[in-house]
Amino acid sequence: MNKMSIPTRFGVKGPLVAIGGAEDKSSGKDILRRVLDMPEKDAPTVGVITTASCIPDEVFDSYRSAFSEIGAAEVFDLRIRDRKDAASEDIVEMIQNSDIIFISGGDQMRLTNILGATAAMAAIRASHAGGAVIAGTSAGAACQSQTMVYGGAAGDSLRKGAVRMAAGFGLVEGVIIDTHFLERGRFSRLMEVGATNPEYLGLGLGEDAAVLFDGDVIRAFGSGHTIIVDSSQVTGSNVCELEDGEPVSVQNVIMHALVNGFGYSRTERRVLGPDELQAKSPEHKIAYS
Amino acid sequence: MNKMSIPTRFGVKGPLVAIGGAEDKSSGKDILRRVLDMPEKDAPTVGVITTASCIPDEVFDSYRSAFSEIGAAEVFDLRIRDRKDAASEDIVEMIQNSDIIFISGGDQMRLTNILGATAAMAAIRASHAGGAVIAGTSAGAACQSQTMVYGGAAGDSLRKGAVRMAAGFGLVEGVIIDTHFLERGRFSRLMEVGATNPEYLGLGLGEDAAVLFDGDVIRAFGSGHTIIVDSSQVTGSNVCELEDGEPVSVQNVIMHALVNGFGYSRTERRVLGPDELQAKSPEHKIAYS
Repeated sequence: MNKMSIPTRFGVKGPLVAIGGAEDKSSGKDILRRVLDMPEKDAPTVGVITTASCIPDEVFDSYRSAFSEIGAAEVFDLRIRDRKDAASEDIVEMIQNSDIIFISGGDQMRLTNILGATAAMAAIRASHAGGAVIAGTSAGAACQSQTMVYGGAAGDSLRKGAVRMAAGFGLVEGVIIDTHFLERGRFSRLMEVGATNPEYLGLGLGEDAAVLFDGDVIRAFGSGHTIIVDSSQVTGSNVCELEDGEPVSVQNVIMHALVNGFGYSRTERRVLGPDELQAKSPEHKIAYS
Repeated sequence: MNKMSIPTRFGVKGPLVAIGGAEDKSSGKDILRRVLDMPEKDAPTVGVITTASCIPDEVFDSYRSAFSEIGAAEVFDLRIRDRKDAASEDIVEMIQNSDIIFISGGDQMRLTNILGATAAMAAIRASHAGGAVIAGTSAGAACQSQTMVYGGAAGDSLRKGAVRMAAGFGLVEGVIIDTHFLERGRFSRLMEVGATNPEYLGLGLGEDAAVLFDGDVIRAFGSGHTIIVDSSQVTGSNVCELEDGEPVSVQNVIMHALVNGFGYSRTERRVLGPDELQAKSPEHKIAYS
């Protein structure tokens, strides 16, 4: 209920981008272009992690084409299929040579299960601390929070225990990220998450929508919506009194719908309009098209 | 933004019940039981309107069985397929003889298109003013508000003009009702509706969830959720500046998830817990099971 309880270190080092899935890879490629524009380099290198996917080769091919067409110097296949791959020196070296590490969609549990506590993950964290961009879409976005949502049909949620959560990579603190948010109607998932712990800001990313975590500010871009689910003012919920599966009530959840060019101040817990946002000097490089 | 702008007459006469669709008709039938319990009579009569449905005979059969099993004296088939039927004296007489008028699901536009400005609709209003219960599910609930939502894919909404609205029956003032709300992820529809006019309270009814409009109070019952979407505190939206199809931003939408036994005070714009709600003397008869 009070602003002092919000973490003041946001844990972001290099630019961190979360995308809600189904970003444009074939026409304007707006989101991918802006990601590629983030490193302070003309033609950056991109390492693509397809571990989450069950069709990793196809997914890699589509990102290789997309990033090459818009000017990447090189696109590496960070071919991590199991924990042995995630321990390999070749993979670590490719990570170290990537200006951008891009994590594809699929099943976020595969990401944490295969990459957790490996040399590859340590290399990703070290690269990020050194300023490399990390961007992920769908599962690759959901895994970025400390506690990650990995399942629970939207229609079943707001039933105690329906939303499945597990420990994520913790690349950003104080938020919980959900994806395909408007398209799959996942509002009730983040309402349930907020009832269980109002301290965490819910970030519901729509398809072809992205955010850049930029210090205190969350900057929205892309053609889709980002829904901010602020449970900090919740005045009551029955969640503690329930058995598993019983319906959860929750009162006073505040939501905001952000579109391209809008932002959100995490310490002030308010939306920033385009003018105000552009005036705030960005910690990380972002182009507003 | 201010409480004075909320309508103080709620326009409810007899009990009015809105159900989010897919209410239990075969096992406990909790919602239908409570509706049947509302008239001050041991074995009330029920008239069923299946005009919205494309399989009206099957739908009527399922409600006839359900209401008969739980103690209705008689279940009338208010067989209104076109505007001629809606002008018929037989239909008007059946409406006058129904203690409860139950409107099934289907397409709400069929309801307004066929029943609007007919003798049947006049008889329904007169019965309601005289104390008869009106209950509707899915399309039969959506049609109850003054402005009714009738379409717009949830995934497309929050794009200007995506949510389709038309004039409803206006059986209740000051609210806009949406149904199958959690199951079809329609939160963004009512956020768009709220951005277009923050004065109207959004009521998002889940499946097997119902509300009784009881004067100032909205009483939730059934196994599902009712989401209250309160846009009265909205601090900004770009909706006026947009062309059709462009993404809508909206700031500071307050949501509450109500479950069975909870309520909402429309004048105070706050959730009422079970104890507080039962203490408020109900204007209409409702059993809390």
